[in-house]
Amino acid sequence: MLLYDYSKSTAAYRVRIALGLKGLSYQRETVSLLDKHQQSDAYRSLNPAGLVPTLVDGDVTLSQSLAIIEYLDERYPQVKLLPSDPVQKAQCRSLALDIACDVHPLNNLRVLQYLTGPFGHSDDDKITWYHHWLKQGFDGLEAKLQGLDSPFIGGEAPNLADICLVPQLFNARRFAFDLTAYPTLTRIEAQCQTLDAFIQAHPDKG
Amino acid sequence: MLLYDYSKSTAAYRVRIALGLKGLSYQRETVSLLDKHQQSDAYRSLNPAGLVPTLVDGDVTLSQSLAIIEYLDERYPQVKLLPSDPVQKAQCRSLALDIACDVHPLNNLRVLQYLTGPFGHSDDDKITWYHHWLKQGFDGLEAKLQGLDSPFIGGEAPNLADICLVPQLFNARRFAFDLTAYPTLTRIEAQCQTLDAFIQAHPDKG
Repeated sequence: MLLYDYSKSTAAYRVRIALGLKGLSYQRETVSLLDKHQQSDAYRSLNPAGLVPTLVDGDVTLSQSLAIIEYLDERYPQVKLLPSDPVQKAQCRSLALDIACDVHPLNNLRVLQYLTGPFGHSDDDKITWYHHWLKQGFDGLEAKLQGLDSPFIGGEAPNLADICLVPQLFNARRFAFDLTAYPTLTRIEAQCQTLDAFIQAHPDKG
Repeated sequence: MLLYDYSKSTAAYRVRIALGLKGLSYQRETVSLLDKHQQSDAYRSLNPAGLVPTLVDGDVTLSQSLAIIEYLDERYPQVKLLPSDPVQKAQCRSLALDIACDVHPLNNLRVLQYLTGPFGHSDDDKITWYHHWLKQGFDGLEAKLQGLDSPFIGGEAPNLADICLVPQLFNARRFAFDLTAYPTLTRIEAQCQTLDAFIQAHPDKG
């Protein structure tokens, strides 16, 4: 298995965690977003959208982190990352999409570059934007998860929602966002960070 | 079944199409985004993120359009909206997420309001922003789907990817985006618009 990856990509970070939780070995090919390698013709032949990550598993080439993780969960079911109960599965997906659709897309690198480039915003504006959308998303998530009495959103083990939460909190810290209003989210994050799959997937591991 | 809905909401439009394709009857409760009813305490008690849509099915309350549609597909499988083959299913989800994560979140109402409100942009800037992210997304989608020889992305019947495509093209037209570079996308759209489920779900139907 080959993962086209960038260490600080939030979406690639999710896939690295999932591969680690499943104990799947893989090779990494770095696609530097800062150097815009994701826009090269060679990479676009794999992923026409020019976004990271892409997973190649035999003759299957897949983009979109959530689609990749669901594929891995069906193809390699030894450790399950989504609940089998349909309602619990739907709630897990809903929480994952709260992050993947309503927080991350607004705050990823290409959007910040568009704000400070063509749209002429300052770095202070960029931080204001970043924090605004984090607050919108995290307020809803904290409310949804309030009262959770298990170690992880997934219960005794992390699921797809935990996998989406941790990289988003990593980004929040990078942008100096105050997390004191989110005790449930940070408690889950701390629990995840005790697991080797989360530790090994961290962007600082390169 | 009760759908908390707003006629022009792209995400709610997806769910209306899915319910129609499955032949499921439901009631609609309008949540006016222009009047910010989605931020009311009453609505947030159902959907803490304050976003549309929310589906209530018996004792199940669900948010996030893609999670809702996947739930409907498992709970009411008489008409399938996702392929059963794991690789085809993953590719279907990947295309749906190309729209739901990488196009729509950047162009929805709350983001446009933030650009023209606190960020002080003109209506012309808003259109530039809107078109920029549509082009990024549609260029990738058109390339991925080039050579598709079936009526729908789903083959002989629409799937989750078709369901995400049509509302995004509706929005593109609303914002006067030139679609001549996307013959595959508009050909699929025209095919979908022959089906009653797509016709009845259209925002102009109220």
